[in-house]
Amino acid sequence: MSFSETVGELGENEALKRTVARLNQGEYTLVGSGDDAAVIKAADGRFVVTTDTMIEGHDFRLEWSNGFDLGFKAVATNVSDVAAMGAKPTSLVVAISVPATTKISFLEDFADGLRTACEQLAPGCAVVGGDLAASDQVFISVTAHGDLEGRDPILRSGARVGDIVAVAGTLGRAAAGLSLLFSGDKDAISAYDALVGVQLRPEPPIAAGIGVHATSMLDVSDGLSRDAARIAKASGVAIRIKGQDLQGFEAMLDDVALRLGVSSRDWVLFGGEDHSLLATFAPGVQIPRAFKPIGVVAEGSGVWLDERELPESGWDSIRG
Amino acid sequence: MSFSETVGELGENEALKRTVARLNQGEYTLVGSGDDAAVIKAADGRFVVTTDTMIEGHDFRLEWSNGFDLGFKAVATNVSDVAAMGAKPTSLVVAISVPATTKISFLEDFADGLRTACEQLAPGCAVVGGDLAASDQVFISVTAHGDLEGRDPILRSGARVGDIVAVAGTLGRAAAGLSLLFSGDKDAISAYDALVGVQLRPEPPIAAGIGVHATSMLDVSDGLSRDAARIAKASGVAIRIKGQDLQGFEAMLDDVALRLGVSSRDWVLFGGEDHSLLATFAPGVQIPRAFKPIGVVAEGSGVWLDERELPESGWDSIRG
Repeated sequence: MSFSETVGELGENEALKRTVARLNQGEYTLVGSGDDAAVIKAADGRFVVTTDTMIEGHDFRLEWSNGFDLGFKAVATNVSDVAAMGAKPTSLVVAISVPATTKISFLEDFADGLRTACEQLAPGCAVVGGDLAASDQVFISVTAHGDLEGRDPILRSGARVGDIVAVAGTLGRAAAGLSLLFSGDKDAISAYDALVGVQLRPEPPIAAGIGVHATSMLDVSDGLSRDAARIAKASGVAIRIKGQDLQGFEAMLDDVALRLGVSSRDWVLFGGEDHSLLATFAPGVQIPRAFKPIGVVAEGSGVWLDERELPESGWDSIRG
Repeated sequence: MSFSETVGELGENEALKRTVARLNQGEYTLVGSGDDAAVIKAADGRFVVTTDTMIEGHDFRLEWSNGFDLGFKAVATNVSDVAAMGAKPTSLVVAISVPATTKISFLEDFADGLRTACEQLAPGCAVVGGDLAASDQVFISVTAHGDLEGRDPILRSGARVGDIVAVAGTLGRAAAGLSLLFSGDKDAISAYDALVGVQLRPEPPIAAGIGVHATSMLDVSDGLSRDAARIAKASGVAIRIKGQDLQGFEAMLDDVALRLGVSSRDWVLFGGEDHSLLATFAPGVQIPRAFKPIGVVAEGSGVWLDERELPESGWDSIRG
C-alpha cells in the first residue's frame, strides 16, 4: 500500500512532489516553489527573517513526536520569532532530511503539520520552498519571514525603567509536558495530555505579537528567567518579577508537579519551549488582553523574583 | 591553545559568538543577528528566497572539504539560485550543526568561508542570522535572499522557439574535480587542483545573472542535460544543443579525462555542481559577453545534442 513506501523507494523527486502537494499557497507568494527560488511580497520594503533547527535525538525523539507534530512545531517555533519582532508571518522555507528508510507517510504527515500550523497560527503564511535530502538522523531547518507592515521592529533593547513586564501565552506547560514524557509514566502522560501537547505542538500567541505597542519583546524559548535576562541585558535595566503574579501559571501545574515530585514554580521560571511572548509596555499604555502583567522594569541589572536575583542560566541549570 | 578547543568545551553560546564575530555586516541589513529575527531591506516590495542543504557523507566528505571550503560552497550554491532569478543576493541565514567534538577552528574557518564567498561572489550580501546546534553528522542549511530591483523574475518557463541557448560559467569542471577526488590519485589531484577547486569551492557567475535580459534562466546544479530539460519542460519547448559549441568546454577537460579513462563530453553534458547559469535569449538581443551560445530553442520537447535526444536523468545515469 502506498503509505508504506519509503522515501528511498520513491526517490527524492517523487517524495518531494507528494509532500509539496499537501501544502497550500500563501497570500504573500508571488512565485511559489518549483523554480530556482520563490518570490514573496514585502510591501513596506523590508522583511523579517529568522531560522531555527530541530535535530533528532537533540530536539525531539521519534518515539514521542510523529511527523505531524514535528511539522507543526517547526512552524510554531519559527513564526513565534517573527511575531516577537511585532511582524506578521508571511512565508517559510523548510529543509528536511530523513533516512532513506523513512515512510512517505511520515513526510506527508509532516507536510500536514506544516500546513495546519500555518492555517491555525499564522493565516496567510505558507511554505514557499524547501529541500528534501537523505541523512542518518532526521534534521529539520526552517527559515521564517515576516512583514512589519510599516511599523518599527520590536527589539529586546527597548525596555525602559517604569515599563510593565507582561507575558502572552503559557509558562511552564511545555516543561511539564517534557517532564511527563521523560517520566515514562503512561497514566500520567494520558491524564495530562494537554501539557504533553504543549511540548509536542506548541501554540504560541502569534496574533498577540503582531503590531502590539510594546517597548521590547521576545519569544520565551529558553525559559522566563533566561529570556527576561536577555531583555534586561540588551536594554540595560533590571526585570523585577512579582512572585504573586506567577501564581496563576503555577496553580495550573501544581497537580502534576505534585505527582512528579517537582516544583511548579521551577517550571514556570526556568522551563523552556512554551514560545510565549515576553514584552514590556510603557507606563500608561493599555496592556492588550492577551498579555498578563508579571512585573516591572527597574534600574539596575539582572532578573529578580521579588527580592531574590535569579540565576541567568535558566533551563540548563535545572536540567543539570 | 584556543584553536584546539572543541564546540562542546566552549558551549554553543561561546562557539556561536566566536563564529559570528568573523562575519561582516551586509549593506541590506537593517537589524542584524542578536534579536529574535533580522530585518532586511527589500526596496522594490518583494524578495527572492531559496534554500539548500549540505549533509556530511551525502554532499561532502570532511576528508576532502575543510571548514572554509564548506562555508564558501554553502554561500556559492545558494546565491547562484538567487542570481538565476535575475536577482541580486542580499542576505543569508545559515544553520549548521556539528558534533560536540568539533574544533572551534572548524567553525571559524567555516565563517571565513561564508564571509569570503559573500565578498567575492555577492558584494553587499551578508549572513544576517543563523543557528548552531549539536548533531552526529555535520549539517549545513542555508537560505538566501535577493532583490529583483524592480525587474520581473526570470523563470524557467519563459523560453520561446527561436531563442538562443547560452551558458555563463563552466561545464563539467566540478564533475572532473569530483572524479579526481574519487580516484584517490594524489598526483592527479595535485596536477589538476584547479578542477578540484571548482568542486570544493565553486565560483558561479553571479554578476552575469543579475539583471540579465534573458527569457528563461536556471542554475546548472544537476548537469546541463538534466537542467536544460527543466527549461524545456517548463517552457513547453525543445532545447537543441550544438555539439560543436561544447568543444571549448570539452577541450579543457580532455587531458584529465584521458588520464582517468573517461569521456570529457559526459562530464560536460551530465556533470553537476558547476553552478553555471543556463539561459535563453530572444533572437536579436545582444547576448552578454559572459554567456556563450550553445544551441537554440525549437518546437517540440526534450533536450537534443545535434540529432540525438539526451536522457533526462542526467547526472544520476552516469553515476549508476
